[in-house]
Amino acid sequence: MQPADFKVKTLDPCKIQSPIALSKVKGDRIFNFVEESEKVLFDVVWNDHQENGLPREPLFMERAGPREKIYFDPSKTTVAIVTCGGLCPGINNVIRSLVMTLYYRYGIRRILGVQYGYKGFIPEHGHSFLELSPDQVTDIHQFGGTILGSSRGKQDVSVIVDCLERHGINILFTIGGDGTLTGALAITKEIEKRDLKISVAGIPKTIDNDINHIEKTFGFETSFTIASPILRDAHNEAKGAYNGVAIVKLMGRDSGFIAANAALSMPEVNLVLVPELEFDLYGEKGLLEIVRRRLAAKQHCVIVVAEGAGQFLFDKREVRKDASGNVLHEDIGLLLKEEILQYFQQLKMDITVKYIDPSYIIRSAPATPSDSIFCNKLGLNAVHGAMAGKTGFVVGRRNNKFVYLPIELVIAERKKIDLEGDLWLNVLETTGQPMTMKNKDTSLAS
Amino acid sequence: MQPADFKVKTLDPCKIQSPIALSKVKGDRIFNFVEESEKVLFDVVWNDHQENGLPREPLFMERAGPREKIYFDPSKTTVAIVTCGGLCPGINNVIRSLVMTLYYRYGIRRILGVQYGYKGFIPEHGHSFLELSPDQVTDIHQFGGTILGSSRGKQDVSVIVDCLERHGINILFTIGGDGTLTGALAITKEIEKRDLKISVAGIPKTIDNDINHIEKTFGFETSFTIASPILRDAHNEAKGAYNGVAIVKLMGRDSGFIAANAALSMPEVNLVLVPELEFDLYGEKGLLEIVRRRLAAKQHCVIVVAEGAGQFLFDKREVRKDASGNVLHEDIGLLLKEEILQYFQQLKMDITVKYIDPSYIIRSAPATPSDSIFCNKLGLNAVHGAMAGKTGFVVGRRNNKFVYLPIELVIAERKKIDLEGDLWLNVLETTGQPMTMKNKDTSLAS
Amino acid sequence: MQPADFKVKTLDPCKIQSPIALSKVKGDRIFNFVEESEKVLFDVVWNDHQENGLPREPLFMERAGPREKIYFDPSKTTVAIVTCGGLCPGINNVIRSLVMTLYYRYGIRRILGVQYGYKGFIPEHGHSFLELSPDQVTDIHQFGGTILGSSRGKQDVSVIVDCLERHGINILFTIGGDGTLTGALAITKEIEKRDLKISVAGIPKTIDNDINHIEKTFGFETSFTIASPILRDAHNEAKGAYNGVAIVKLMGRDSGFIAANAALSMPEVNLVLVPELEFDLYGEKGLLEIVRRRLAAKQHCVIVVAEGAGQFLFDKREVRKDASGNVLHEDIGLLLKEEILQYFQQLKMDITVKYIDPSYIIRSAPATPSDSIFCNKLGLNAVHGAMAGKTGFVVGRRNNKFVYLPIELVIAERKKIDLEGDLWLNVLETTGQPMTMKNKDTSLAS
Amino acid sequence: MQPADFKVKTLDPCKIQSPIALSKVKGDRIFNFVEESEKVLFDVVWNDHQENGLPREPLFMERAGPREKIYFDPSKTTVAIVTCGGLCPGINNVIRSLVMTLYYRYGIRRILGVQYGYKGFIPEHGHSFLELSPDQVTDIHQFGGTILGSSRGKQDVSVIVDCLERHGINILFTIGGDGTLTGALAITKEIEKRDLKISVAGIPKTIDNDINHIEKTFGFETSFTIASPILRDAHNEAKGAYNGVAIVKLMGRDSGFIAANAALSMPEVNLVLVPELEFDLYGEKGLLEIVRRRLAAKQHCVIVVAEGAGQFLFDKREVRKDASGNVLHEDIGLLLKEEILQYFQQLKMDITVKYIDPSYIIRSAPATPSDSIFCNKLGLNAVHGAMAGKTGFVVGRRNNKFVYLPIELVIAERKKIDLEGDLWLNVLETTGQPMTMKNKDTSLAS
Repeated sequence: MQPADFKVKTLDPCKIQSPIALSKVKGDRIFNFVEESEKVLFDVVWNDHQENGLPREPLFMERAGPREKIYFDPSKTTVAIVTCGGLCPGINNVIRSLVMTLYYRYGIRRILGVQYGYKGFIPEHGHSFLELSPDQVTDIHQFGGTILGSSRGKQDVSVIVDCLERHGINILFTIGGDGTLTGALAITKEIEKRDLKISVAGIPKTIDNDINHIEKTFGFETSFTIASPILRDAHNEAKGAYNGVAIVKLMGRDSGFIAANAALSMPEVNLVLVPELEFDLYGEKGLLEIVRRRLAAKQHCVIVVAEGAGQFLFDKREVRKDASGNVLHEDIGLLLKEEILQYFQQLKMDITVKYIDPSYIIRSAPATPSDSIFCNKLGLNAVHGAMAGKTGFVVGRRNNKFVYLPIELVIAERKKIDLEGDLWLNVLETTGQPMTMKNKDTSLAS
Repeated sequence: MQPADFKVKTLDPCKIQSPIALSKVKGDRIFNFVEESEKVLFDVVWNDHQENGLPREPLFMERAGPREKIYFDPSKTTVAIVTCGGLCPGINNVIRSLVMTLYYRYGIRRILGVQYGYKGFIPEHGHSFLELSPDQVTDIHQFGGTILGSSRGKQDVSVIVDCLERHGINILFTIGGDGTLTGALAITKEIEKRDLKISVAGIPKTIDNDINHIEKTFGFETSFTIASPILRDAHNEAKGAYNGVAIVKLMGRDSGFIAANAALSMPEVNLVLVPELEFDLYGEKGLLEIVRRRLAAKQHCVIVVAEGAGQFLFDKREVRKDASGNVLHEDIGLLLKEEILQYFQQLKMDITVKYIDPSYIIRSAPATPSDSIFCNKLGLNAVHGAMAGKTGFVVGRRNNKFVYLPIELVIAERKKIDLEGDLWLNVLETTGQPMTMKNKDTSLAS
Repeated sequence: MQPADFKVKTLDPCKIQSPIALSKVKGDRIFNFVEESEKVLFDVVWNDHQENGLPREPLFMERAGPREKIYFDPSKTTVAIVTCGGLCPGINNVIRSLVMTLYYRYGIRRILGVQYGYKGFIPEHGHSFLELSPDQVTDIHQFGGTILGSSRGKQDVSVIVDCLERHGINILFTIGGDGTLTGALAITKEIEKRDLKISVAGIPKTIDNDINHIEKTFGFETSFTIASPILRDAHNEAKGAYNGVAIVKLMGRDSGFIAANAALSMPEVNLVLVPELEFDLYGEKGLLEIVRRRLAAKQHCVIVVAEGAGQFLFDKREVRKDASGNVLHEDIGLLLKEEILQYFQQLKMDITVKYIDPSYIIRSAPATPSDSIFCNKLGLNAVHGAMAGKTGFVVGRRNNKFVYLPIELVIAERKKIDLEGDLWLNVLETTGQPMTMKNKDTSLAS
Repeated sequence: MQPADFKVKTLDPCKIQSPIALSKVKGDRIFNFVEESEKVLFDVVWNDHQENGLPREPLFMERAGPREKIYFDPSKTTVAIVTCGGLCPGINNVIRSLVMTLYYRYGIRRILGVQYGYKGFIPEHGHSFLELSPDQVTDIHQFGGTILGSSRGKQDVSVIVDCLERHGINILFTIGGDGTLTGALAITKEIEKRDLKISVAGIPKTIDNDINHIEKTFGFETSFTIASPILRDAHNEAKGAYNGVAIVKLMGRDSGFIAANAALSMPEVNLVLVPELEFDLYGEKGLLEIVRRRLAAKQHCVIVVAEGAGQFLFDKREVRKDASGNVLHEDIGLLLKEEILQYFQQLKMDITVKYIDPSYIIRSAPATPSDSIFCNKLGLNAVHGAMAGKTGFVVGRRNNKFVYLPIELVIAERKKIDLEGDLWLNVLETTGQPMTMKNKDTSLAS
């Protein structure tokens, strides 16, 4: 990855004066328009060993915010907003923020809500556009879900761009995850190919918080906030029985951020299993033996498992139990429940296992106040970027600053928990779980 | 059921003056001790057609509350508290109320917490008693679960009574459901057989609210209170997709009170299925056709199903699909999900079904303030009854009054939703679901 | 009060068949229309000393619910809904329930929302009617406040009835408290004087729960539910300082139901002061000495005071401090704070007093699920009564049954806490506060 | 401020191997001990205009985390924890994290809880130390307040250090705000003067989030999280009346962070007043005229005011109204209420003003899950720093990284909202309030 990668494309030079009354001088107690020369550092932890205390070539990102010159003429601009993929707390907050900013800050009057995701562009599905105005979105931030509806899956990019052209859409805001952003990139390229002047802006939505290079995605904080009292309840269930084990499965297909943060917020948790972590079930250092020792010491045990954790167990198991069906085998929570029950049955220890899977309850809830602020700011900054003619970009936060990044960059790979980083250290420190659950771990410091 | 059935037994006449300073005269602004002659009417809806506007033989229950004369000498009384069965919000509140009332109102100093249900009495399990005092219980009402732990299953009544004798226990408070109360009755009878002077008092615990003759059990209100926003979220999930269906399974093995009340509290629900209700899946009036019409009209549908609903469907289905496993077939929520998916697949309609099962999240939560008050009052009244030497009784509420009822009476059968009563009418009025979902319903008014 | 008082007036005999498909026979699993002969007993606690175990002349109330014959022809009926007085949780839930029931159960299509209380009828204020339909009210139960707006104060009854006539309104639903119901009664009488066929139905709204003969008003449960964690917080404040005192003022102008129930729900409270209670500040048995003893024992003290408590203190004080302004003197919370600070200053004891007044936070909150159910049922039953041509009535609940009562009856006087009743006993038992705080209390049992 | 300022002092070189099994090599999936050479950049927004794209002398902070070599021998170390000043959500979480980390990570067994703030060190107050262990703190994170109690005000530093010496305390953790940290610095200096080897570590506590150079203090997020629904309620109150105005006063003596963030989270707010902002009451651009225009357009208005806002108004007013008492004049919320009422009275416009002051409810609440995580990490990192012999330091977060900073640096001045920064821009964008409320603002861009 080279510094140049961080540069966001623009449609054309901006020539129109922004309708927002901001300043260009310091000290007048009025926000200064953000200049293109303003940058946000990519890495903030440096080491004295670097030459002159500085890395030779530090990486920078574009600072988000209102530009003095904009590309689109507000009086003639049509905007479309689409929401794709699974629900995530805060979608409505982002929609509200986009509409309010477009309407009140830039004076744009034609804002179209695309229904049911990218399908809403495809004529055969027959979903009409909704006309969005402040009156219609003023209360929606108090509701979970998305007022536009959503759908999953790819649609024909060419048909989508036909639709954009046909309806004179100048800016498209896409709220969605990896797949949605991949689609947005394809749309951007098709637009470029046709030499159209349409800006495409992405607001990354992944409840798992696994968009690369971006420190936090909206809905993520709400997710572990809702999961937190569920872990407290699981602890009650575990303690309510003699040798009680409670297993809570949380979202996290490829990355365990929700599981890790939920456990940090409710430190009754004894074990956190995430997709990034390898572990053995059996053997002296294996999971089952760890659970046994925990029960021997305290008579109860709370396990949090991300849905994508321990997927390597399924293959081995299929070999061992070839009569098993498919559905059960893909659910790591159920697998753990079964393995634990079987293990203690063999040990003739009487235990109780409760399995809790709260995922739908989490993703359709309204955003917390903190997430609401975050959604609000994402919407504000997305509009500022798009109005300045930027395209093929996402708005995100890193090092506590809002930045614009090229879509390519953030979809190249998924963000994962660094097992050598602070977050995982904090999880180990808080749960007291062993540094390794592998019987033979050659990577361990001797 | 005869009026005499309502009479609670007492160990012996009460001769000791209550240590509580109450009154015996009206008008002095001090509560009067409750006299044994005070009764609470069992039925409150009467009909003019009855002779003289009165039923010939109205039924009465014993009014709960502090008696002037008590049976047990507080300075020499040992009390045991045991909690059995599944978790339910409010158990700790009841424990706290019992301990505080025994300690501060009656001056009792030896209060034993029995660990892990009836198992805690059985020597081989090795669970010691906890000594309970105000300091230890002062904060516990803020936590779900039970500080005493619980267990399920029968234990040898004779061994339990041996234990009561051995430790000089004079009063046993059992907090539990149907099985626990059946156990409490057996203990009462064994005590009687041995001619011991031990009082057994039950505080009915059933999250399903299905204890007979009692209008409300603790934890029930908390349950639908927690379920309520989950229905709101389910509605978001349903609306988030085109032709989205959300199915929420709530507790209710034999009675649908939680499902009915949750739906009344969050009237986005379109269909409520309870164990008391017969319905067809197929045919013009069947469930699947109702779902189809709902989707045709509004493009989304929310279904609440009690876990015990539609059990009659499993037999038929096994015939139809004999290769199916057992586990899946017992879950009505999964069955509905499958049937709905299959039905619309045949119709070539594209739908999305989300299935939500929040039960553990509900039962281990802390009690709501309203339930906390209720638990508090149950504890207060249970102590007053037991101190007056009553035995083999439960404390409960009916017609908004606290009463004492014989255990026999409340375990004879389970309370169910009356499909001809107000509650079910309100559900029909609120959801708009059809009066019947049977293709041939001979019971219907023509 | 005579039995006849309980009879609700009707405009005329009902001749139209209800459009709701209910039953007239028992056993068909369909709700039976409620007959006029069905009654709900007023008192449920009886005493054996009464002749034959029955009171000679028991009082009955009219049972609420759908009637077979209705008075208004749905196809030609116009309905108005007005909300008056201060906010209370649940108003929007009641509005929603009224609109949904009128629309879907009875097929009424013209439902008018009167804006800003009775003022909305008075031409000079220029507030237009809102047309209400299911689409407009479908989400409002999730919001506190009232979508119709409200106002306080009397308006000219004659002008209001002119307005009803002019707009062909057949049924008026008024949601409001004492003053509003007094207005509704005056409107009913003016209607009668003019010989019009307009039904007036009241849904009593008093956050204080002080409507006479009615066991619970909507919003009341939400109120103490919101107050409950505030008491927990107050306890934290009190314990956070050495000799910390926290005073929480809760609503309750004439009756202390919110204060009493909040304290029962969060039993950290040490003292509850309600309007019904007389107490001395000074002297051996006075409040200040009780606080001192509490601090000596436990180093912290939590006091809950209803806003209408201790009003008798202000006269004495005005004599003592005649230079004081009016505002401060009417706030019992501030008076207590000052008196406590002064008392301990004289004793040279270092204490900290925190004063918390959360009233607006409570009354504008959304209703709890339990209150939402209650509001839902109030709306359903209010519509059933009004459609049957009943007028000058309120819908309420007593002995857990919904009934219709004449407005006159419920506004005759306010309901108050019976200091000799169960509720106050439970408060004393839970807080441990002394039976009396009067130095000389002639009413005390010797 | 020079780069050297950021350097934290240490008692002596560390020679003891940390008992925590971490790594020193990259790639072994085990966290590497933090080296002293690791730095966190102070500023992350840079500008191309800087030479070579880099500032000539970038500022760095010390990265927090576990060190390989520690100073204190865990087997002989005594630790004291003290909490001072007003309550703030999360104090107990920090205490829990400190105790758990000291006990389980470092094996320290003597941990003393100092009661009631710095007073707990002063013999004459007679407050004993509490012995803290995991069992005692395991549940405390679920409660607001502080289990140690707190107090305000200075204590004699010499007597405090005498106490530290007398009890062999090696590490003192102080949880408190500006005053507490000033005290901690004085204690550090006295320790140095006496040539003692005692480490003093501060965990900054300010609900206002106004500690300099630190991006977020614990409890702050909980504060605006609790304030958020109160603003929603205030909006209900404002809309509930015709021309309704709701004023909510939030914490913020010198800085308006809570007010600004609460408004961003609940964008129904129309005006935010913070201590950093100058504004006129009267005149064309003044506050009152802005409120009038808002009411004319929408008939309701929600104002959020930080307690320290508009203090300049009091002087002017005292001149104008010299008979006024002191109490009223210090409350900006009451002043605004009065001024608004008076203004519209003069205009003969009928308005309603509701004033809401929820501060105690906020500060004594339990921490949100997100704040709980933050407290957890503060505790972990504070222990790591102190065990490495660092002293006179605070642990804080900046640019999303945990760092150690010298106490001097963070108490030099208070952090304030930059009216030219992102946050305030976002507030203006969200509320739509004018860029200036001064009639003559020479600073405005022409």
